[in-house]
Formats: sequence, C-alpha cells, structure tokens
Amino acid sequence: MHFSLAELAERVGGRVEGDGSIRVERVMPLEDAGPSDVSFFANRKYAAEFAATRAGAVIVGEDEAVAPGRTVLRAGNAYLAFARVSTLFHPPREPVPEIGSRAVVSEGAVVDPSAEIQDLAYVGRGAVVGARTILFPGVVVGDGARIGDDCILHPNVVVREHCVVGNRCILQPGAVVGGDGFGFAFDMEGEGSGPRHFKVPQSGIAELEDDVELGANACVDRATLGRTVVRKGAKIDDLVMIAHNVDFGPLSLAAAQVGISGSTKVGMGAILGGQVGIVGHLDIGDGARLGAQSGVMNDIPAGETHSGYPATQHKDWLREVAATRALPALVKRIRELEKAIKKLQEER
Amino acid sequence: MHFSLAELAERVGGRVEGDGSIRVERVMPLEDAGPSDVSFFANRKYAAEFAATRAGAVIVGEDEAVAPGRTVLRAGNAYLAFARVSTLFHPPREPVPEIGSRAVVSEGAVVDPSAEIQDLAYVGRGAVVGARTILFPGVVVGDGARIGDDCILHPNVVVREHCVVGNRCILQPGAVVGGDGFGFAFDMEGEGSGPRHFKVPQSGIAELEDDVELGANACVDRATLGRTVVRKGAKIDDLVMIAHNVDFGPLSLAAAQVGISGSTKVGMGAILGGQVGIVGHLDIGDGARLGAQSGVMNDIPAGETHSGYPATQHKDWLREVAATRALPALVKRIRELEKAIKKLQEER
Amino acid sequence: MHFSLAELAERVGGRVEGDGSIRVERVMPLEDAGPSDVSFFANRKYAAEFAATRAGAVIVGEDEAVAPGRTVLRAGNAYLAFARVSTLFHPPREPVPEIGSRAVVSEGAVVDPSAEIQDLAYVGRGAVVGARTILFPGVVVGDGARIGDDCILHPNVVVREHCVVGNRCILQPGAVVGGDGFGFAFDMEGEGSGPRHFKVPQSGIAELEDDVELGANACVDRATLGRTVVRKGAKIDDLVMIAHNVDFGPLSLAAAQVGISGSTKVGMGAILGGQVGIVGHLDIGDGARLGAQSGVMNDIPAGETHSGYPATQHKDWLREVAATRALPALVKRIRELEKAIKKLQEER
Repeated sequence: MHFSLAELAERVGGRVEGDGSIRVERVMPLEDAGPSDVSFFANRKYAAEFAATRAGAVIVGEDEAVAPGRTVLRAGNAYLAFARVSTLFHPPREPVPEIGSRAVVSEGAVVDPSAEIQDLAYVGRGAVVGARTILFPGVVVGDGARIGDDCILHPNVVVREHCVVGNRCILQPGAVVGGDGFGFAFDMEGEGSGPRHFKVPQSGIAELEDDVELGANACVDRATLGRTVVRKGAKIDDLVMIAHNVDFGPLSLAAAQVGISGSTKVGMGAILGGQVGIVGHLDIGDGARLGAQSGVMNDIPAGETHSGYPATQHKDWLREVAATRALPALVKRIRELEKAIKKLQEER
Repeated sequence: MHFSLAELAERVGGRVEGDGSIRVERVMPLEDAGPSDVSFFANRKYAAEFAATRAGAVIVGEDEAVAPGRTVLRAGNAYLAFARVSTLFHPPREPVPEIGSRAVVSEGAVVDPSAEIQDLAYVGRGAVVGARTILFPGVVVGDGARIGDDCILHPNVVVREHCVVGNRCILQPGAVVGGDGFGFAFDMEGEGSGPRHFKVPQSGIAELEDDVELGANACVDRATLGRTVVRKGAKIDDLVMIAHNVDFGPLSLAAAQVGISGSTKVGMGAILGGQVGIVGHLDIGDGARLGAQSGVMNDIPAGETHSGYPATQHKDWLREVAATRALPALVKRIRELEKAIKKLQEER
Repeated sequence: MHFSLAELAERVGGRVEGDGSIRVERVMPLEDAGPSDVSFFANRKYAAEFAATRAGAVIVGEDEAVAPGRTVLRAGNAYLAFARVSTLFHPPREPVPEIGSRAVVSEGAVVDPSAEIQDLAYVGRGAVVGARTILFPGVVVGDGARIGDDCILHPNVVVREHCVVGNRCILQPGAVVGGDGFGFAFDMEGEGSGPRHFKVPQSGIAELEDDVELGANACVDRATLGRTVVRKGAKIDDLVMIAHNVDFGPLSLAAAQVGISGSTKVGMGAILGGQVGIVGHLDIGDGARLGAQSGVMNDIPAGETHSGYPATQHKDWLREVAATRALPALVKRIRELEKAIKKLQEER
C-alpha cells in the first residue's frame, strides 16, 4: 500500500509544504522513519528527534516552525490528520463472515450472517450478534445479551446475560461487561447462623451505547436495578472500574485504572486522568477534568479542573502543593518569629 | 411473578403503612417505578425522587418521614428488607445438571452430578466440582483444585491448580484465584550470566472459604508457602489484588481496586474503601475502616478508622486536610507577622 | 523427594551450623514446620515465630543471631538460598509435548513439537510457539504472534496479533499483551455527524523480552507505532498497566496495580511500589525507586528514591509528611504569635 504525499494531504484535509510527489509507504515514529515514510511531530519533548528524522515527510500543526528543506504535511489538527493517515495505512480488519466449527452458538441465538464468530467463542441462548461484528476466541456473550453491528470483541471479553453493546464498539481483551455490582446488606442475624453480608441482587444490566471503547480487563458492572450506562462515544482505558448504576457521559474519557463508585454520574466530554477515584452518588459536570490519581469526594461543576486527594480546584491544589513543599522552611520561619517575639517581650 | 405488599412485608419482616393489598410485580428504581412496583429509599440525596415517585410502595427505614398518602413497607434494616424483596423477584439461577458436550472434564476429575459445566469450561485432572455448582464458559479449574457446593464461577474465571474454593462462593468474570505471588530473590551472579531476579517458587495455594464473593478481574495470589486465605463471608470487589500469604478476615469488605501486599492480615468485619493500598506484613484489626485511596503503612488497631496518604486516624486526617487547604492563607499570616515584628524591632 | 541438609547447603552455596545429616522433606513456613522441614527467617517481625519454630533447620543470613541448639543453613543471600532450596523441592512443571484434541491450532501456525498446547487453547494463523512452551486452556495467541521457548502462558492469557514474547517468560492468568493503546484524536466535525473521538490506529506491537514475568490480569498495550517493550528480566505484578510505547527497563520491578502512561521510559533495575502512577513521556532513571502509591509527574534521576503525590525526593516527602501531621499544632503557634504581637503593639 502506498500513497503520494499530496494524495494523503488531500484525503485528510491538510496541505503539503515541499515535495508532494513523495511516495509514502509507511507511517513510522520519527526515530525509525526513512525517506518513504511519513511521521508525526507535536510534542516539543521530541524536538531533537524531529530535527534529526530521516522521514520523507512529517505531519505537523499550523504553527509548527520547520527547518528549511523539511517536507511537511500541515493540518489544523495535526494529531487528527496523523490518525487519519495512519488509518489509511492500517484499515480496520474486515470481518470474515463465518462461524468457526469450534465456536459455540447456543439455541435461539441470532447471529447476523455477516458476523465472524471465531473458534472457541461462545454465544448464549437468545443472544444477538449484529452485522459485521467480530468475536475473537474466548469471547463469551451471555444469554439474551445483544451486541450491535461492526463491533470487535477481542479475545476473552465477557458480556454477561442481558447486557447491551451498541454499534461500532471495541472491547479489548479481558474486558467485562455486566459483572455483578458490589452490593450487600448487612444481616446481623443471618437467619440464626450469625452475621453475614446478604447479597443484593444485581438484576439490572450494563449497557454500552454506540462507539464506546473499553480497555483490556476493564470492568463495567451491571446495575442493582435499571442500568449502568456508558454513553455514546465514551472511551475507557485498561483496568478501569465502572460500578453499578454509574452513568458515564458521551464522549467522556477515563484513563487507565480509574475507579468510579456506584450511581455516580459523569457528564459529557469529561476527562479523567489515570487512577482517579470517585466516590458514589456524585455529579461530575460536563467537560470536567480530573487530574491523575485525584480522589473525588464532592460534585464537580461543569468545566472545572480538579486535582488532589481529596480533590480540589486544580489551581488551589497547585498552591497547596507548593505550600506543603515549603512547610519545613515555614516551620523554621515560625521558630524565628517565636524567638524574636520572646526577645521583644523580654526587652519590654 | 407477583406478591401482595402485605405478603412481601411478612416475608421480609417489615410492616405496611397504607394499602397492603397492592399487587407488586417488579422492583424498580424510584424514578422508573409505577403503581405495580415496589421501590427503595434510604439516601437523602434522592429525596426529590422519593417525593415524586409513582411507585405503588416504597421500602423505608423505621425513622423515615413519609408524605401522607404514600404507601410504604417499613423495616428496621430497610436495605436488608429491600435485598430480600429483590431476591424474591430475582431468585438466583438454578443449575441445570449437565456437562456441555464442548466442555472439557479431565481424567480423574470429580464433578458432582448436580453441577452444571457449560460448554468451553475446563476442569483439570483430579479437580473436584461440588453439588449444584455452575461453571460458565471459559472457566478454567486447574489440576487438583477443589470447588465447593452451590458456587457460581462466571465466564473466564480461573482457579489455578490445587487451590480451594468453599461453598456458596460467587466469582465474577475474569477473577483469578491462585496466580503466582510476586516473589523474586535478587541474584547478582546469575550463574555467570549476570544479574537476574530468581523466581521464588509459589508452592502454596490460595483458598476462599465459604460465602466469599470475588469481583470481576480480581486477583487472589497463591502463597509462597502455606496459603493465602479469604475467610468466610468476605466480599471483594472488581480489580482487587490480594497478594501471597494475605489473610483476609471473615465478613471483611474490599471495594474496587484495593491492593493488599504480601503477608498482611486483615481482621474480621473490616471495611476497605476503593483503591486503598496496604503494604506488606501488617495487621489490620477487626472492624477497622480505611478511607478510599488511603495508603496504609502501619498496623491499624481494631475498630479504628484511618484515611490519607500515609494513612492516619480519620479525624486527624480531616484536620490535616483542612489545615493544608488553609496553608496558602497561613503563609500570608506569617508574612504579616514577620512585617509586624520587623516594625516592632525597628521601633525599639 | 528429600535431601540431607548438608546436600541442600552445598547445592545452594551455604553452610550448615548444626546437624547436616538432617533429612529434609519439605519447605514450610516457620509456624507450620516440623523436624523434617526446612524453613526461612529474615524479617525481624517474625522473631517470635523463629524462636518457637519446630523446623529441623532454618535458612538465615550471615549476621543472624541464632539460639544455641538451633540448626541453620547460613548463606550470604538468605532469600536467594531459600528460593533455590524451594526450587529443588518444587521444580517447574515439565511440558508434556502434545496438542490437546480440543485445542485450536490455526493454519500456518508453527508449534514446536516439544510444546504443550492444552485443550481450549488457541493459536492463530502464522503464530509461532517455541520449544517446551506450555499454553494452558483459554490462552489465545493471535495471528502472527511469536512465543519463545520455555514459556508458561497460564489460563486465559491473551497475546494479540503480531506481538512477541521472548524465552522463559511466565504470564499469569488473564494477562493481556498487545491490547490497543489508548489513543484518540478529537474530531470536532466527525464528518458532519458531530464531535467524536477518532481512533488512532495502534499499529505497533507489544514485546516482552526474555525472562519477563507478568502478573494476573496485567496489561501491556501495543504501540501506536513501533513497539511497547518490557525488557529482559523485568518482573511485573498483578493488574499493572503498561501503556503504549512504554519502554520498561531490564530487571525493573513493578508491584501490583502500577500504571505507566504512554511513551514513558523506565531504566534498568528500577523498583516501583504498588499503585504507583507515572504520567506519560517521562524518563525514570536506572535504579530509581518509587514509593507505593506515589504519583510521578517529572523525570526521576538514576538511583533516586521518590515518594508522595506528586512525587518528590523520599527524604523531603518524609519531612513534608511530618510537617503536615504537625500543621494543626503549627496553626495554634501562629495564633499565639499573633496574640503576642498584638499585645506588644498595644503596649507601644
């Protein structure tokens, strides 16, 4: 597969500065690229690699300064242009309409004829698998679950009974949709046999709307009642935990190892950094941003950026961190003050 | 399935205020419930939903104020009453005694005739599966492992060789019992080939006693020697990590993404908030409570509540947090003091 | 299996103090050991257990004080000696050269005749499985992936297409190699259908070099371009997340639930405590140590120990923590100072 640089620029809505007739055969990192490769530069940390690259062309933003003689593909959103170019070279895998002889499709399941059910995948009773969807080996779609069109369920993904996955969803290996929420009522008597945690049935479902991606080994628990929902276009990274009855908003992002407790609502377009924890029953507003590892114990207004543990306004947190860093010095200043005052008092 | 409200009250040990003859057909959240539904109210955050609900009846606690005309089912432990009512409507799935034709049951394995081994589940050599236990597709029970009666092993659960799972345990999808503990001895010479981490055999087992639940993708590692144990009635949420030789006490709870390092002992009825981390070789006393995200580096006495990083008494932590929040203001006050003293000193 | 204590000492490079003719049949923890068992003591927390043990012999370090009459096996590196002794009693499982009749080996896959492919394991098209490597049930090796010699892939491990696993690697259950990195370009127009996150193809691979171990449900994502690499002899614990394009150095250790963001480079022999989080594009120097739960937002120089959130030099962090603990008292001292000054000012 190859394109001229000019063709790439046209396809992704950018423009060439330099020789548009260059034949581009691969997309490569700056340090590995050669004359037939296109690469990408945006993060100034890699300025040296940009200066030294042997790439035939580099995708850059509108304002990027470029050394003379360097051929670039300029675009308003350079990262998006790069993503599009890369997609031209790495188009998504086409499904092969087939049910593997070692796959299990249970009674009453409805599998679209264009879907690909690989060997050792399992489709439960009454489950539905949509058009062009691919189930890799080890995938388990529970009884009555519904998987939409054009989905990819990578190896060992589990979608438990009655849960719903929309169209164009991608579930990375080991992701789990619809595990039981963590709900127990403390029962002091336990019908005479002593205290126990009585399991609260988790009779709701988990639903992923269209265009959702779940990372490897991520977990979206089913609801106690009703549904847990990850809304259209949301993207969730590896090892994230979405608890029962959470409503995770459209286009919102959760980086790796985020944990969101039960019944919390995250608005549209929020961005949650890695390892963020959010307690239950909160409202995280549209467009909120939460710094990595922050511990959120209160509602977050729309558009605000919070950080820290417990989380607070990001700029306040920065100030607190700076003040905390200076604390040992501050203690010294207070000691000095105490001495000075003692002296003044003695001089009275 | 349906019950009269009076019947429900009797079955769960509560009492009706209002019309006990209401026919109840479903358990529903306050906002979705209709006249034939019973719902549940306890968290004041949802007072508006409680006021507005169209539910035929609502389960509430003894002291809950209720608007005139609202029919309620009152109980001393409202959450437990709700759990019991919900269980009447959503009884656990009955096992279908059968070994799927695509399941693998190895030589010498003993599977109780009342157990259900679904297609693509695997039972290793000499393993034991108890009465009425259900293994979903993708479950792997290793050689010589023992699974008790009335267990549910959801899809893709792994119980490695020789590990033990008690009776009435529920393992959510992807949970792993008996992965190797993380133990390596640094070996500077490496038999002449340079430094290496020499693997310490993890020859012990992991054991879940009766009535334990593990969340999706949770991990309980096997012991270096002896056993890692999760004791009777303990409940563990998604993505929790229990390291080698941990002893996790009866009726204790670990919320999502908790990590407990090697050889730490957690007592009875402890409650660990989400993302808590505990270092190794500690003693966490009976009934201890650890706030979400806290980082525990010391033993915790029985009954105490600790929070923070590093964890300290919860009330001290609250004071520290408040003081830290006020630090930037405090710095100003110190600057003022320094000025005032300078002035006093100059005036001498 | 049994050895004389003298034989054990000779095999592991230690020396006996006491009766070397003792017949040793098992390796046991101090508290469970009997006269035919060898045990291990290094952590002073267990001094009482050491004093009380009925073990026939105990492995200890060079400087350990030992009660009269206690037989010990002394070694310079006691933990390594223990590991070696334990390996003699618990040698790694030998592969049984065989492809299970219920395993799936796809067209064009090359499986070494000495490898063991258990039932319900899956090897994709063109994949390679090396000599003496064991694939347990539920393992999925994707198309074109390469697994080296003498590896153990425990149940339900996934190695996605084209990824590479070196020799002597051990992957605990549920570990995922080569899930897509978390990369999306925000696309405001979405070709007329409104904003979306445009998926950046993750066309690179993930590679584990020789002698790497991955914990249960750990995730190593594939690269956007090029490769994510875990280098020779590195060991990674359960539920760790290694993001796209990370370079995790040789002999480095990551304890449970660590998260490393994209493109970060970790040097040789670094030690990352449990639940550490590292943001993207950083350099963590050789031999760096990061305290449990620390949140790393800056490069770490080689050999330094950092802790805290955000992480700072460990000794500074200890000082900050102490000062923060003392903050409420400090506030009181400042209040006293303010009063004293007011008084002095009034007296002028």
